[in-house]
Amino acid sequence: MKIVVDAFGGDNAPKEIIEGVLLGIQRHPEVDFILTGDKEKIEAELAGRNLDKIEIVHAPKVITNDDVPTEAIRKMEDSSLVKAFDILKTRDDVDAMISAGSTGAILTGAIMKIGRIKGITRPALAPVLPTKVSNKDVLLCDSGANIDCKPINLYHFALMASAYYSILYGVSKPKVGLLNVGVEEHKGNDLTREAYALMKNSDLNFVGNVEAREYMSGNIDVMIAEGFAGNVLLKASEGAVMAVLSLLKKSIKSHLSSKIGALFMSKTFKELKGRMDVLGKHGGSPFLGVKKLVMKNHGSCGRENIASSIEQAILLHNNKLIEKIENALSKTGDES
Amino acid sequence: MKIVVDAFGGDNAPKEIIEGVLLGIQRHPEVDFILTGDKEKIEAELAGRNLDKIEIVHAPKVITNDDVPTEAIRKMEDSSLVKAFDILKTRDDVDAMISAGSTGAILTGAIMKIGRIKGITRPALAPVLPTKVSNKDVLLCDSGANIDCKPINLYHFALMASAYYSILYGVSKPKVGLLNVGVEEHKGNDLTREAYALMKNSDLNFVGNVEAREYMSGNIDVMIAEGFAGNVLLKASEGAVMAVLSLLKKSIKSHLSSKIGALFMSKTFKELKGRMDVLGKHGGSPFLGVKKLVMKNHGSCGRENIASSIEQAILLHNNKLIEKIENALSKTGDES
Repeated sequence: MKIVVDAFGGDNAPKEIIEGVLLGIQRHPEVDFILTGDKEKIEAELAGRNLDKIEIVHAPKVITNDDVPTEAIRKMEDSSLVKAFDILKTRDDVDAMISAGSTGAILTGAIMKIGRIKGITRPALAPVLPTKVSNKDVLLCDSGANIDCKPINLYHFALMASAYYSILYGVSKPKVGLLNVGVEEHKGNDLTREAYALMKNSDLNFVGNVEAREYMSGNIDVMIAEGFAGNVLLKASEGAVMAVLSLLKKSIKSHLSSKIGALFMSKTFKELKGRMDVLGKHGGSPFLGVKKLVMKNHGSCGRENIASSIEQAILLHNNKLIEKIENALSKTGDES
Repeated sequence: MKIVVDAFGGDNAPKEIIEGVLLGIQRHPEVDFILTGDKEKIEAELAGRNLDKIEIVHAPKVITNDDVPTEAIRKMEDSSLVKAFDILKTRDDVDAMISAGSTGAILTGAIMKIGRIKGITRPALAPVLPTKVSNKDVLLCDSGANIDCKPINLYHFALMASAYYSILYGVSKPKVGLLNVGVEEHKGNDLTREAYALMKNSDLNFVGNVEAREYMSGNIDVMIAEGFAGNVLLKASEGAVMAVLSLLKKSIKSHLSSKIGALFMSKTFKELKGRMDVLGKHGGSPFLGVKKLVMKNHGSCGRENIASSIEQAILLHNNKLIEKIENALSKTGDES
């Protein structure tokens, strides 16, 4: 297997990206890597390391969050990101790409350069989120990339996220819920009612409507949402967790007894922090619905996160994520 | 001032409702009350108390959550809720109504029996939510009553919730944010972009788009949302807070040191619990946009919550909430 890595995407590039790749090589000596970016700088970072497994492709420019995605992908051919996309697109020996660069540019590049799987109009991200059950995560698809979806898009999200979840956790028929304002079939708006009907009459393990309150309950594996609502779900949970932890911290500081108590509770605070950081465990998210594996890492990620992303890319490649999505789609007979 | 109270709405009716009214009388001897419901049962609850301030209107039936709201309001004329609405509607000496009954029936009754303020097509609830800043709450409007809103509805929510917030907290120009997937003006969907333009060009203290992550930051006073997204925001936060507390509890139980630590932290846990329960502090929520004051309490509420609702009804009546909303609307010149 060969993975191309955008060495200049993200806040901590190139150092953390390159260190992540070196960790990946240690753990998976069977995999080869291509790094795109300023060749001199990459070579400086790699000085004294074994370069057997690494090919460097020079690309002096860097796309930032300030660049307009469509323009950047079209015009910045000598950027580390576009070069990585071109390599993934044109070289048959390259199976996956990893970048921690601008989300918009990665999504745009994936669609423009790599292309959509036949039948998919809206590719999507499905981040992994924690639940209150130990070792049980939940996928949210879509989490904000796709605003104004049609029912068929939500149905496709469910097919793609199910295939992804089943590889990630070894579950053959993941439980799929539809984000809604109530559990009854008629609840919500036209979009949710039509998406409900599509999923109910499919091969999916569809458990029906699920309220936002329940998505961390551990009772479902995949939560399907239109991008606006999915984004609100993701960020509201994040904000609420941060608010609780901030109130907790403030209150501990203001009572001597609580300060003493907190000293005894370090294990618990560590556990809580670890449980909330599931993204760290899995690295990036694959961009579901494009023809080759494109992994998107968080802009602020470090080496361990890149190494996890490599791990995940290998898992998804070996278990044929793209083919599984294509198969699921072909079974539906729907190519709208 | 005179308040009519549905004595048979809610899980703890009639006992807790009646005890709440008695607390209200203790604290506000200047206010008179009408209780609707089964007269014999109410009299039994009131046995031995001073009845000077209480009028009882007999209504033997009770509308439950299983009844279809529109049918129940139309046909169950001798129910405690419909009787309360009829009294609020027909008697000029009655200024407000309180019920902890079926939300759907209260909303339907408020619209059908009391009617909308001229210009308002979509009345709304604006629950009070906690922020991470002490003594600073935030209103969310709409929180789920109105699915599929138009831009003008969102603008009206902002006018109404601002009037409500300014009375509740004594702030003359509350900061209004619009729930969106990003802060830039062009973000979101057609609904948010058009609502943004309406609010930007108004007398509101509009601070722009606000992401779900930020609504508990304490930086805004009023969060405006279409009902579906608002419902997701409300319930996702609730779910996330519950998940964190549940993980915390589980982890404490599994480490002896944490168990010991938790004993020292009782003050902090109590503070945290109190901060999360802001609804308890304020009692019910007024149904914004109807011609008279209708307060909706949570179905599981107890006497203190009813007493808080009475307190709030008095505050909103004395500060002329309905007139303030009418004035804000008339200034816009828009009566769509």
